[in-house]
Amino acid sequence: MTISIAHLGPAGTYTETATIAFSHQLSQLGQESVLCPYPSITQALWAVSQEQVNLAVVPVENSIEGSVTMTLDTLWQLDTLQIQTALVLPISHGLISLANSVEEIKTVYSHPQALAQCQGWLEKFLPQKVQQIPTNSTTEALKYLESDLSAGAIASQRAAEIYNLPVLAFPINDYPDNCTRFLVLKKGSEEIESSALKLIINRINKPESLVLTSLGFTVPANVPGALVKPLEVFAKREINMSRIESRPTKLSLGDYLFFIDIEANSNDDYVKAAIEEFTTYTKVLKIFGSYTIMAIN
Amino acid sequence: MTISIAHLGPAGTYTETATIAFSHQLSQLGQESVLCPYPSITQALWAVSQEQVNLAVVPVENSIEGSVTMTLDTLWQLDTLQIQTALVLPISHGLISLANSVEEIKTVYSHPQALAQCQGWLEKFLPQKVQQIPTNSTTEALKYLESDLSAGAIASQRAAEIYNLPVLAFPINDYPDNCTRFLVLKKGSEEIESSALKLIINRINKPESLVLTSLGFTVPANVPGALVKPLEVFAKREINMSRIESRPTKLSLGDYLFFIDIEANSNDDYVKAAIEEFTTYTKVLKIFGSYTIMAIN
Repeated sequence: MTISIAHLGPAGTYTETATIAFSHQLSQLGQESVLCPYPSITQALWAVSQEQVNLAVVPVENSIEGSVTMTLDTLWQLDTLQIQTALVLPISHGLISLANSVEEIKTVYSHPQALAQCQGWLEKFLPQKVQQIPTNSTTEALKYLESDLSAGAIASQRAAEIYNLPVLAFPINDYPDNCTRFLVLKKGSEEIESSALKLIINRINKPESLVLTSLGFTVPANVPGALVKPLEVFAKREINMSRIESRPTKLSLGDYLFFIDIEANSNDDYVKAAIEEFTTYTKVLKIFGSYTIMAIN
Repeated sequence: MTISIAHLGPAGTYTETATIAFSHQLSQLGQESVLCPYPSITQALWAVSQEQVNLAVVPVENSIEGSVTMTLDTLWQLDTLQIQTALVLPISHGLISLANSVEEIKTVYSHPQALAQCQGWLEKFLPQKVQQIPTNSTTEALKYLESDLSAGAIASQRAAEIYNLPVLAFPINDYPDNCTRFLVLKKGSEEIESSALKLIINRINKPESLVLTSLGFTVPANVPGALVKPLEVFAKREINMSRIESRPTKLSLGDYLFFIDIEANSNDDYVKAAIEEFTTYTKVLKIFGSYTIMAIN
């Protein structure tokens, strides 16, 4: 059986690069897979929740710009997706353009996160008053270049290759340690059918690998210490919390839900006990799975 | 002396509406002020930090879309700005277009947050496959309407009035309780010179008003409980923490700084003592001020 993998498209996005690397790993273990690009994160996640595809790959966090809130909000809303593994991809942006030189550029198109990650470079090297125009993806920015020789786009070198466009400058991101973390998700918590997928997950899950468990929860409103009490459950057991993110519940200003990553495996007994105590302090708790991180070079 | 107030522009943005309401309050107390629109949040905050203007008004949080990360990151970076007061404005979006009916619309332009806040309505009432195109502000979206009768823009009713454009549907936001919180900031912690500004702040600061203190901080990396320990300082004193937000330090993936709001006044002795203990658990601490919230109708 060929596994189908939904991802944020179109061809040339960073999510596609991460998905290709994951697919390559599956292939090395004898599991064929096919990539299915979707125009938005929400659509990719809906596709897997409705079982139109077997897996979905979506970005969840960038080291410079922070959480991808669309991913967190949809994950909470859909309620049935489980994280199988996480992929970390280094991000390097290039300035792609048909202009003869950087000085000729009057407009720069890209995804808002990519524009934000290159602000310093743009201010230093481009003419003053260059216009910055946001697009839905880094790849979408490329479509403006053919018709306007004074336009530039910020995207990956791979995107430039795919669409046969010249790279004027590379790398142009302000922070060299720019990485994005992606989640590989499937529906439900039942056993994984594909043995290659099991194998790849076991292979990444080396005994020395750090296991993360992602949780989403709400706490009683306007109670002093309402957030601290559940977090103490992990702190007193020396379980490190590597991440916390708050998102609005969308009910009223000041009403939040929280996403945390703990460095522990929810299948271990002492972690099960911790999570059981944790539920006594939360209103709603959703466990998004235990998994390890695969680095992509 | 006339007070100058930088804000995210151009005319017709929700930030301008909040700033006008604040300016009107100043005027009622005999203090004249002039509004200075800036094309981005960063530029508005830089203007006040370089003392080109007396105050700046920028959005910090929306009840649906969450934190305005650009505001938090710039606040941390500039290091010298103090919150004078917060403004809360209800947000209602309209669909603005020169089309004869909603059915004729093929493209919708707006700020990504506004597009996100109307997804349900757009899917229900607009023809399938309508294209959604992000813009820098809700007001900027309006400039596409004149040349394309099949284009729509999501913006405020006020923006439609200013630019003399018809509103096809109102309200179109998916969640009725949609509010945005804005911060009014000035440079440094020295005494406010304008007596009207003092008066307005005292007037908002009624004895029964809830006082918030905003703090930004980092904690030692990879230490279990590193975040819990400082939060316990407030929890054990029954000081409620109404908000927590994490942002990447931009140094490496998994390295965060935190923003919290506590429901307490940093001028009170017991809060001073709490903050002193708090500093023993933090690496860097920045106090952005104590203030109250002014609701705008």
